[in-house]
Amino acid sequence: MSEILRQHLKKFVALDDGDFSSVLKYFRILHFKKKENLLTEGEVCRSNFFVARGCLRMFFIDEQGIEKTTQFALEHWWLADYFSFQKQQKSHFNIQAVENSEVWALNFHAQEQLLSDFPQMERYFRLVHQTAHAASQVRLRYVYDLSKEELYRYFSNNFPEFIQRVPQYLLASYLNMTPEYLSELRAKITS
Amino acid sequence: MSEILRQHLKKFVALDDGDFSSVLKYFRILHFKKKENLLTEGEVCRSNFFVARGCLRMFFIDEQGIEKTTQFALEHWWLADYFSFQKQQKSHFNIQAVENSEVWALNFHAQEQLLSDFPQMERYFRLVHQTAHAASQVRLRYVYDLSKEELYRYFSNNFPEFIQRVPQYLLASYLNMTPEYLSELRAKITS
Repeated sequence: MSEILRQHLKKFVALDDGDFSSVLKYFRILHFKKKENLLTEGEVCRSNFFVARGCLRMFFIDEQGIEKTTQFALEHWWLADYFSFQKQQKSHFNIQAVENSEVWALNFHAQEQLLSDFPQMERYFRLVHQTAHAASQVRLRYVYDLSKEELYRYFSNNFPEFIQRVPQYLLASYLNMTPEYLSELRAKITS
Repeated sequence: MSEILRQHLKKFVALDDGDFSSVLKYFRILHFKKKENLLTEGEVCRSNFFVARGCLRMFFIDEQGIEKTTQFALEHWWLADYFSFQKQQKSHFNIQAVENSEVWALNFHAQEQLLSDFPQMERYFRLVHQTAHAASQVRLRYVYDLSKEELYRYFSNNFPEFIQRVPQYLLASYLNMTPEYLSELRAKITS
Protein backbone atom coordinates (compact mmCIF):
# COMPACT_ATOMS: atom_id res chain seq x y z
CA MET A 1 0.00 0.00 0.00
CA SER A 2 3.03 2.32 0.08
CA GLU A 3 2.70 2.53 -3.73
CA ILE A 4 -0.37 4.77 -3.44
CA LEU A 5 1.61 7.23 -1.27
CA ARG A 6 4.60 7.10 -3.62
CA GLN A 7 2.38 7.90 -6.61
CA HIS A 8 0.80 10.81 -4.77
CA LEU A 9 4.16 12.24 -3.70
CA LYS A 10 5.52 11.89 -7.24
CA LYS A 11 2.68 14.04 -8.57
CA PHE A 12 4.07 16.99 -6.59
CA VAL A 13 7.77 16.49 -5.81
CA ALA A 14 10.83 14.61 -7.07
CA LEU A 15 11.95 11.91 -4.60
CA ASP A 16 14.27 9.06 -5.57
CA ASP A 17 13.72 5.51 -4.24
CA GLY A 18 16.20 5.98 -1.40
CA ASP A 19 14.54 9.20 -0.25
CA PHE A 20 11.11 7.61 -0.50
CA SER A 21 12.18 4.67 1.72
CA SER A 22 13.50 7.16 4.27
CA VAL A 23 10.29 9.25 4.12
CA LEU A 24 8.18 6.14 4.80
CA LYS A 25 9.89 5.66 8.16
CA TYR A 26 8.16 8.75 9.57
CA PHE A 27 4.74 7.16 9.04
CA ARG A 28 2.85 4.57 11.04
CA ILE A 29 0.54 2.18 9.18
CA LEU A 30 -2.80 1.85 10.97
CA HIS A 31 -5.87 -0.24 10.26
CA PHE A 32 -9.35 0.82 11.32
CA LYS A 33 -12.55 -1.13 11.19
CA LYS A 34 -15.74 0.39 9.79
CA LYS A 35 -17.23 2.87 12.33
CA GLU A 36 -14.03 2.93 14.43
CA ASN A 37 -12.93 6.42 15.52
CA LEU A 38 -9.49 7.78 14.63
CA LEU A 39 -10.22 10.98 16.59
CA THR A 40 -12.90 11.71 19.18
CA GLU A 41 -14.09 15.20 20.14
CA GLY A 42 -12.17 16.49 23.17
CA GLU A 43 -8.94 14.69 22.20
CA VAL A 44 -5.98 16.36 20.49
CA CYS A 45 -5.66 15.49 16.79
CA ARG A 46 -2.14 14.09 17.05
CA SER A 47 -1.79 12.82 13.48
CA ASN A 48 -2.33 13.81 9.89
CA PHE A 49 -3.98 10.86 8.11
CA PHE A 50 -3.34 9.74 4.53
CA VAL A 51 -5.94 7.26 3.23
CA ALA A 52 -4.19 4.34 1.51
CA ARG A 53 -7.38 2.22 1.30
CA GLY A 54 -10.93 2.86 2.44
CA CYS A 55 -12.81 5.97 3.39
CA LEU A 56 -12.87 8.34 6.37
CA ARG A 57 -15.28 11.04 7.41
CA MET A 58 -15.04 14.05 9.73
CA PHE A 59 -18.15 15.00 11.71
CA PHE A 60 -19.36 16.90 14.75
CA ILE A 61 -22.35 16.26 16.99
CA ASP A 62 -24.84 19.12 17.21
CA GLU A 63 -26.86 20.20 20.26
CA GLN A 64 -29.65 17.77 19.36
CA GLY A 65 -27.14 14.91 19.34
CA ILE A 66 -27.21 14.58 15.55
CA GLU A 67 -23.98 13.69 13.74
CA LYS A 68 -23.17 16.14 10.94
CA THR A 69 -20.57 15.05 8.42
CA THR A 70 -18.54 17.94 7.04
CA GLN A 71 -15.83 16.07 5.06
CA PHE A 72 -15.04 12.71 3.49
CA ALA A 73 -11.62 11.39 2.50
CA LEU A 74 -11.17 8.58 -0.02
CA GLU A 75 -7.86 7.09 -1.23
CA HIS A 76 -5.08 9.69 -1.85
CA TRP A 77 -6.69 12.22 0.48
CA TRP A 78 -5.29 13.66 3.68
CA LEU A 79 -7.56 14.32 6.63
CA ALA A 80 -7.05 15.90 10.06
CA ASP A 81 -8.64 18.60 12.17
CA TYR A 82 -5.96 21.08 11.13
CA PHE A 83 -6.49 23.64 13.91
CA SER A 84 -6.25 20.92 16.53
CA PHE A 85 -3.28 19.38 14.69
CA GLN A 86 -1.23 22.53 14.22
CA LYS A 87 -1.85 23.91 17.71
CA GLN A 88 -1.94 20.47 19.37
CA GLN A 89 -5.13 21.57 21.13
CA LYS A 90 -8.38 19.71 21.81
CA SER A 91 -10.52 19.01 18.78
CA HIS A 92 -14.20 19.80 18.32
CA PHE A 93 -14.50 17.15 15.61
CA ASN A 94 -14.54 13.37 15.24
CA ILE A 95 -12.85 11.35 12.50
CA GLN A 96 -14.25 7.88 11.79
CA ALA A 97 -13.69 5.06 9.30
CA VAL A 98 -16.65 4.72 6.89
CA GLU A 99 -15.19 1.42 5.55
CA ASN A 100 -12.42 -0.85 6.86
CA SER A 101 -9.46 1.38 6.09
CA GLU A 102 -5.69 1.44 5.91
CA VAL A 103 -4.31 4.78 6.95
CA TRP A 104 -0.75 6.17 6.91
CA ALA A 105 -0.51 8.37 9.99
CA LEU A 106 2.02 11.17 10.40
CA ASN A 107 2.28 12.25 14.02
CA PHE A 108 2.68 16.03 14.53
CA HIS A 109 6.28 15.77 15.75
CA ALA A 110 7.15 13.17 13.11
CA GLN A 111 5.81 15.55 10.45
CA GLU A 112 7.91 18.44 11.80
CA GLN A 113 10.98 16.17 11.77
CA LEU A 114 10.19 14.94 8.26
CA LEU A 115 9.88 18.54 7.01
CA SER A 116 13.15 19.45 8.66
CA ASP A 117 15.00 16.42 7.22
CA PHE A 118 13.34 16.56 3.78
CA PRO A 119 12.55 20.24 3.05
CA GLN A 120 11.15 19.28 -0.36
CA MET A 121 8.20 17.80 1.57
CA GLU A 122 7.21 21.39 2.45
CA ARG A 123 6.39 21.81 -1.23
CA TYR A 124 4.32 18.62 -1.19
CA PHE A 125 2.26 19.72 1.80
CA ARG A 126 2.02 23.30 0.50
CA LEU A 127 0.41 21.93 -2.68
CA VAL A 128 -1.84 19.52 -0.72
CA HIS A 129 -3.14 22.37 1.47
CA GLN A 130 -3.36 24.84 -1.43
CA THR A 131 -5.53 22.35 -3.32
CA ALA A 132 -7.71 21.74 -0.23
CA HIS A 133 -8.01 25.51 0.25
CA ALA A 134 -9.06 25.87 -3.41
CA ALA A 135 -11.61 23.05 -3.01
CA SER A 136 -13.07 24.76 0.07
CA GLN A 137 -13.57 27.98 -1.94
CA VAL A 138 -15.56 26.05 -4.56
CA ARG A 139 -17.51 24.12 -1.93
CA LEU A 140 -18.51 27.30 -0.12
CA ARG A 141 -19.79 28.70 -3.39
CA TYR A 142 -22.00 25.66 -3.90
CA VAL A 143 -23.30 25.87 -0.33
CA TYR A 144 -24.26 29.53 -0.97
CA ASP A 145 -25.59 29.08 -4.46
CA LEU A 146 -27.26 25.72 -4.88
CA SER A 147 -30.51 24.37 -3.53
CA LYS A 148 -30.26 20.97 -1.80
CA GLU A 149 -31.57 19.27 -4.95
CA GLU A 150 -29.02 21.06 -7.14
CA LEU A 151 -26.27 20.15 -4.67
CA TYR A 152 -27.21 16.45 -4.90
CA ARG A 153 -27.32 16.61 -8.71
CA TYR A 154 -23.92 18.32 -8.73
CA PHE A 155 -22.38 15.52 -6.65
CA SER A 156 -24.03 12.73 -8.65
CA ASN A 157 -22.83 14.21 -11.93
CA ASN A 158 -19.31 15.06 -10.80
CA PHE A 159 -18.51 12.34 -8.26
CA PRO A 160 -20.65 9.29 -9.21
CA GLU A 161 -18.21 6.84 -7.54
CA PHE A 162 -18.40 8.80 -4.30
CA ILE A 163 -22.23 8.79 -4.37
CA GLN A 164 -22.26 5.01 -4.97
CA ARG A 165 -19.75 4.25 -2.27
CA VAL A 166 -20.90 6.31 0.70
CA PRO A 167 -23.89 5.07 2.77
CA GLN A 168 -26.99 7.14 2.05
CA TYR A 169 -27.52 8.35 5.63
CA LEU A 170 -23.96 9.74 5.68
CA LEU A 171 -24.42 11.34 2.27
CA ALA A 172 -27.60 12.97 3.60
CA SER A 173 -25.69 14.27 6.62
CA TYR A 174 -22.95 15.67 4.33
CA LEU A 175 -25.54 17.39 2.11
CA ASN A 176 -27.17 18.79 5.28
CA MET A 177 -30.52 17.08 4.57
CA THR A 178 -32.47 14.34 6.30
CA PRO A 179 -32.12 10.74 5.01
CA GLU A 180 -35.88 10.84 4.19
CA TYR A 181 -35.45 13.96 2.05
CA LEU A 182 -32.48 12.41 0.19
CA SER A 183 -34.50 9.24 -0.41
CA GLU A 184 -37.42 11.26 -1.86
CA LEU A 185 -35.00 13.24 -4.00
CA ARG A 186 -33.41 10.08 -5.43
CA ALA A 187 -36.83 8.59 -6.17
CA LYS A 188 -37.87 11.81 -7.92
CA ILE A 189 -34.69 12.01 -10.00
CA THR A 190 -34.71 8.36 -11.11
CA SER A 191 -38.46 8.26 -11.85
CA MET B 1 4.10 49.04 4.01
CA SER B 2 6.68 46.28 3.50
CA GLU B 3 6.91 46.06 7.32
CA ILE B 4 3.53 44.32 7.52
CA LEU B 5 4.75 41.63 5.10
CA ARG B 6 8.05 41.28 6.97
CA GLN B 7 6.22 40.76 10.27
CA HIS B 8 3.96 38.16 8.73
CA LEU B 9 6.85 36.25 7.16
CA LYS B 10 8.78 36.35 10.45
CA LYS B 11 5.88 34.64 12.22
CA PHE B 12 6.46 31.54 10.10
CA VAL B 13 10.04 31.47 8.75
CA ALA B 14 13.50 32.83 9.52
CA LEU B 15 14.63 35.35 6.88
CA ASP B 16 17.49 37.81 7.47
CA ASP B 17 17.29 41.41 6.19
CA GLY B 18 19.23 40.61 3.03
CA ASP B 19 16.92 37.70 2.16
CA PHE B 20 13.85 39.79 2.91
CA SER B 21 15.03 42.56 0.53
CA SER B 22 15.54 39.92 -2.15
CA VAL B 23 12.12 38.35 -1.50
CA LEU B 24 10.41 41.74 -1.90
CA LYS B 25 11.67 42.01 -5.48
CA TYR B 26 9.29 39.23 -6.59
CA PHE B 27 6.25 41.32 -5.56
CA ARG B 28 4.51 44.20 -7.28
CA ILE B 29 2.89 46.89 -5.11
CA LEU B 30 -0.57 47.74 -6.40
CA HIS B 31 -3.16 50.27 -5.24
CA PHE B 32 -6.87 49.76 -5.76
CA LYS B 33 -9.69 52.20 -5.17
CA LYS B 34 -12.80 51.14 -3.29
CA LYS B 35 -15.02 48.96 -5.54
CA GLU B 36 -12.23 48.44 -8.09
CA ASN B 37 -11.86 44.83 -9.31
CA LEU B 38 -8.56 42.95 -8.93
CA LEU B 39 -10.07 39.93 -10.70
CA THR B 40 -13.19 39.65 -12.85
CA GLU B 41 -15.04 36.39 -13.57
CA GLY B 42 -13.82 34.87 -16.85
CA GLU B 43 -10.25 36.15 -16.40
CA VAL B 44 -7.34 34.03 -15.16
CA CYS B 45 -6.35 34.77 -11.54
CA ARG B 46 -2.73 35.64 -12.36
CA SER B 47 -1.66 36.79 -8.89
CA ASN B 48 -1.79 35.83 -5.24
CA PHE B 49 -2.68 38.99 -3.29
CA PHE B 50 -1.34 39.95 0.15
CA VAL B 51 -3.31 42.78 1.79
CA ALA B 52 -0.87 45.38 3.21
CA ARG B 53 -3.63 47.95 3.86
CA GLY B 54 -7.38 47.88 3.30
CA CYS B 55 -9.84 45.11 2.67
CA LEU B 56 -10.70 42.82 -0.24
CA ARG B 57 -13.63 40.52 -0.87
CA MET B 58 -14.21 37.56 -3.16
CA PHE B 59 -17.68 37.12 -4.63
CA PHE B 60 -19.63 35.45 -7.42
CA ILE B 61 -22.78 36.57 -9.20
CA ASP B 62 -25.70 34.14 -9.01
CA GLU B 63 -28.30 33.41 -11.70
CA GLN B 64 -30.52 36.21 -10.40
CA GLY B 65 -27.62 38.67 -10.80
CA ILE B 66 -27.07 38.95 -7.05
CA GLU B 67 -23.50 39.33 -5.76
CA LYS B 68 -22.66 36.74 -3.10
CA THR B 69 -19.56 37.40 -1.00
CA THR B 70 -17.80 34.20 0.08
CA GLN B 71 -14.58 35.62 1.61
CA PHE B 72 -13.06 38.80 2.98
CA ALA B 73 -9.36 39.57 3.44
CA LEU B 74 -8.11 42.26 5.82
CA GLU B 75 -4.46 43.20 6.50
CA HIS B 76 -2.04 40.19 6.71
CA TRP B 77 -4.38 37.98 4.69
CA TRP B 78 -3.71 36.39 1.34
CA LEU B 79 -6.48 36.09 -1.23
CA ALA B 80 -6.74 34.52 -4.67
CA ASP B 81 -9.04 32.12 -6.50
CA TYR B 82 -6.63 29.24 -5.84
CA PHE B 83 -7.97 26.83 -8.48
CA SER B 84 -7.72 29.51 -11.13
CA PHE B 85 -4.30 30.56 -9.80
CA GLN B 86 -2.72 27.11 -9.60
CA LYS B 87 -4.06 25.89 -12.93
CA GLN B 88 -3.87 29.34 -14.60
CA GLN B 89 -7.40 28.76 -15.86
CA LYS B 90 -10.40 31.10 -16.06
CA SER B 91 -11.93 32.08 -12.74
CA HIS B 92 -15.59 31.85 -11.72
CA PHE B 93 -15.06 34.48 -9.01
CA ASN B 94 -14.47 38.22 -8.68
CA ILE B 95 -12.07 39.92 -6.26
CA GLN B 96 -12.82 43.54 -5.39
CA ALA B 97 -11.46 46.22 -3.04
CA VAL B 98 -13.93 46.98 -0.22
CA GLU B 99 -11.79 50.00 0.84
CA ASN B 100 -8.94 51.84 -0.88
CA SER B 101 -6.27 49.16 -0.55
CA GLU B 102 -2.56 48.53 -0.95
CA VAL B 103 -1.89 45.02 -2.16
CA TRP B 104 1.38 43.12 -2.64
CA ALA B 105 0.81 40.94 -5.70
CA LEU B 106 2.79 37.79 -6.43
CA ASN B 107 2.33 36.74 -10.03
CA PHE B 108 2.06 32.94 -10.57
CA HIS B 109 5.43 32.69 -12.33
CA ALA B 110 7.09 35.08 -9.87
CA GLN B 111 5.80 32.88 -7.01
CA GLU B 112 7.21 29.73 -8.65
CA GLN B 113 10.56 31.50 -9.11
CA LEU B 114 10.52 32.79 -5.52
CA LEU B 115 9.85 29.26 -4.21
CA SER B 116 12.65 27.89 -6.34
CA ASP B 117 15.14 30.59 -5.21
CA PHE B 118 14.03 30.64 -1.55
CA PRO B 119 12.81 27.13 -0.68
CA GLN B 120 12.09 28.25 2.91
CA MET B 121 9.15 30.19 1.42
CA GLU B 122 7.52 26.79 0.73
CA ARG B 123 7.18 26.47 4.50
CA TYR B 124 5.66 29.93 4.74
CA PHE B 125 3.02 29.20 2.10
CA ARG B 126 2.43 25.69 3.47
CA LEU B 127 1.54 27.25 6.84
CA VAL B 128 -0.58 30.00 5.22
CA HIS B 129 -2.61 27.41 3.28
CA GLN B 130 -2.77 24.96 6.20
CA THR B 131 -4.22 27.74 8.38
CA ALA B 132 -6.71 28.71 5.67
CA HIS B 133 -7.65 25.03 5.28
CA ALA B 134 -8.19 24.80 9.07
CA ALA B 135 -10.31 27.97 9.01
CA SER B 136 -12.46 26.55 6.21
CA GLN B 137 -13.13 23.42 8.32
CA VAL B 138 -14.38 25.60 11.20
CA ARG B 139 -16.39 27.83 8.88
CA LEU B 140 -18.12 24.87 7.27
CA ARG B 141 -19.08 23.63 10.71
CA TYR B 142 -20.72 26.97 11.51
CA VAL B 143 -22.54 27.01 8.18
CA TYR B 144 -23.94 23.53 9.00
CA ASP B 145 -24.64 24.13 12.64
CA LEU B 146 -25.69 27.72 13.28
CA SER B 147 -28.88 29.56 12.41
CA LYS B 148 -28.39 32.90 10.64
CA GLU B 149 -28.91 34.74 13.93
CA GLU B 150 -26.34 32.56 15.73
CA LEU B 151 -23.90 33.08 12.86
CA TYR B 152 -24.23 36.86 13.17
CA ARG B 153 -23.77 36.68 16.97
CA TYR B 154 -20.70 34.48 16.48
CA PHE B 155 -19.10 37.03 14.15
CA SER B 156 -19.97 40.03 16.35
CA ASN B 157 -18.51 38.34 19.42
CA ASN B 158 -15.39 36.96 17.77
CA PHE B 159 -14.59 39.56 15.10
CA PRO B 160 -16.06 42.88 16.34
CA GLU B 161 -13.58 44.99 14.29
CA PHE B 162 -14.55 43.10 11.15
CA ILE B 163 -18.27 43.69 11.80
CA GLN B 164 -17.65 47.43 12.34
CA ARG B 165 -15.48 47.82 9.29
CA VAL B 166 -17.37 45.99 6.56
CA PRO B 167 -20.40 47.70 4.95
CA GLN B 168 -23.63 46.12 6.16
CA TYR B 169 -24.89 45.06 2.72
CA LEU B 170 -21.63 43.12 2.15
CA LEU B 171 -21.79 41.57 5.60
CA ALA B 172 -25.36 40.46 4.81
CA SER B 173 -24.16 38.93 1.54
CA TYR B 174 -21.35 37.09 3.40
CA LEU B 175 -23.80 35.76 6.01
CA ASN B 176 -26.08 34.65 3.14
CA MET B 177 -28.99 36.84 4.33
CA THR B 178 -30.74 39.88 2.87
CA PRO B 179 -29.66 43.36 4.07
CA GLU B 180 -33.22 43.82 5.44
CA TYR B 181 -32.94 40.65 7.53
CA LEU B 182 -29.54 41.73 8.91
CA SER B 183 -30.92 45.16 9.77
CA GLU B 184 -33.87 43.58 11.66
CA LEU B 185 -31.47 41.25 13.45
CA ARG B 186 -29.21 44.11 14.58
CA ALA B 187 -32.22 46.08 15.80
CA LYS B 188 -33.46 43.03 17.73
CA ILE B 189 -30.06 42.33 19.29
CA THR B 190 -29.33 45.94 20.34
CA SER B 191 -32.88 46.60 21.63
